[in-house]
Amino acid sequence: MILPNITKNYYKIITLFFYNLMKKILIIGSGNVAHHLSIALKNSGFEISQIFSRNLITSKKLASKIRCDFTNEIEKVQDYDLAVLCVKDDEIQNVVNQFDKRPIVHTSGSSGLSVFKNQKNLNGIVYPLQTFNKNTKININEVPFFIVSDDIVFKKELKRIFLKISGKAEIIAEDRLKRIHLAAVFACNFSTEMYSIAQEILMAENSDFENLKPLIYQNFKKIENNKIKTLRTGPAKRKDFTIINKHLETIRDPRLKKIYQAISDYITQND
Amino acid sequence: MILPNITKNYYKIITLFFYNLMKKILIIGSGNVAHHLSIALKNSGFEISQIFSRNLITSKKLASKIRCDFTNEIEKVQDYDLAVLCVKDDEIQNVVNQFDKRPIVHTSGSSGLSVFKNQKNLNGIVYPLQTFNKNTKININEVPFFIVSDDIVFKKELKRIFLKISGKAEIIAEDRLKRIHLAAVFACNFSTEMYSIAQEILMAENSDFENLKPLIYQNFKKIENNKIKTLRTGPAKRKDFTIINKHLETIRDPRLKKIYQAISDYITQND
Repeated sequence: MILPNITKNYYKIITLFFYNLMKKILIIGSGNVAHHLSIALKNSGFEISQIFSRNLITSKKLASKIRCDFTNEIEKVQDYDLAVLCVKDDEIQNVVNQFDKRPIVHTSGSSGLSVFKNQKNLNGIVYPLQTFNKNTKININEVPFFIVSDDIVFKKELKRIFLKISGKAEIIAEDRLKRIHLAAVFACNFSTEMYSIAQEILMAENSDFENLKPLIYQNFKKIENNKIKTLRTGPAKRKDFTIINKHLETIRDPRLKKIYQAISDYITQND
Repeated sequence: MILPNITKNYYKIITLFFYNLMKKILIIGSGNVAHHLSIALKNSGFEISQIFSRNLITSKKLASKIRCDFTNEIEKVQDYDLAVLCVKDDEIQNVVNQFDKRPIVHTSGSSGLSVFKNQKNLNGIVYPLQTFNKNTKININEVPFFIVSDDIVFKKELKRIFLKISGKAEIIAEDRLKRIHLAAVFACNFSTEMYSIAQEILMAENSDFENLKPLIYQNFKKIENNKIKTLRTGPAKRKDFTIINKHLETIRDPRLKKIYQAISDYITQND
């Protein structure tokens, strides 16, 4: 359903003149991100109107924590000012299509604004640069929130809202968000993959991963430093092609060989 | 100079019958590894006979800490029971050739026993699985020491010595050492490289690396888990080829593209 532009402009004007408009927030999803964001919003004085989620077990749990309503039926969704979408990337488009009446944001670093391309409601992205797990405490104050929207007023309102739960909320352009997400993939997913590969090599040796932990912890402290690149060590840094080739001979999995080769090339050629 | 086999056998026999033979240790090198190992050995009751290093400034500093002699002249090297070689990998062969009279070990995970191939003295490897920096305190008790030697008696003696400074000293075969070193390269050098790449992407955005630190710290805690692979997140884990391709388009440096592609392939094909 396409709403007339008047809805959009109504919000714009109201927001401009009555600061603090968006009070009632609908949380869509009941996973890790929904969990942390809804609690943080509630703690910052916002009203969580409902949890909307197809998973009634997790949404009931979350709703009881926040003391709010929950539903999995679109007809039972109550009035709200802003919907915050916290579902998996591949479900975003589907859910967005169902919520086209009111302002909405998704929280994905990778889905972009294109999921809203057929929408007339106010929309945007609020990307928290963090990995969330229900069972792990997160200092939400320190999580940077990156805000993207084509609407100049709406994005300011989003910034105001998320500055209430974190000291770091920044409006950025969509293409910058993509590159920040790319950086996060290297820093988070790919660094973990390096640890995972190391663990699997040791497992194949019947050697305990505990042996690597002191090294990993000590090495990890380095990232406190200003420029990580200057702290490189190891065979590639030394351009020790004898060792690099020995390692490549040692690796049996051709995909692992490619990873080793690609990273070593990058280090040896990029001093 | 090639010594008669009697020297080697003499040490074997003496070691067998008089436990605690090797008391006087010559440290070769005055860098980060020499620093931590010489202090740890001294603290464990060994006598550091001398620091031998071409760098008189750093060796003087280290010698004054340990209260021992130091020299850069081979003629002035005093009597010792065991030489512990802590020099850079590309200098090991050259130094080994000068010290062929007495038992010697190097401390490199990558150089192997081949550097001793022309030697008749007792020799081996004591590889501490750790990254050392003079200015950073290390809990040496927790550092695993991997011991390699062709001599069955000598390697036991090495284990005895290094068990005195660490709770973890293990005799292993040379080919296992190579694979453990390979694991260390992934866990240490390559994980750091992922953080470094993330930092450079953010720098190009004029975005502060501080923004990534909360994510990195939170994510890092995961490695406490038993099987890191099960904790994968991100586009490759989701087999989200749309995002993977968007990222590949975003990356301008072809070497970075190769890294991204190789790691993503590994994750998508290796669930």
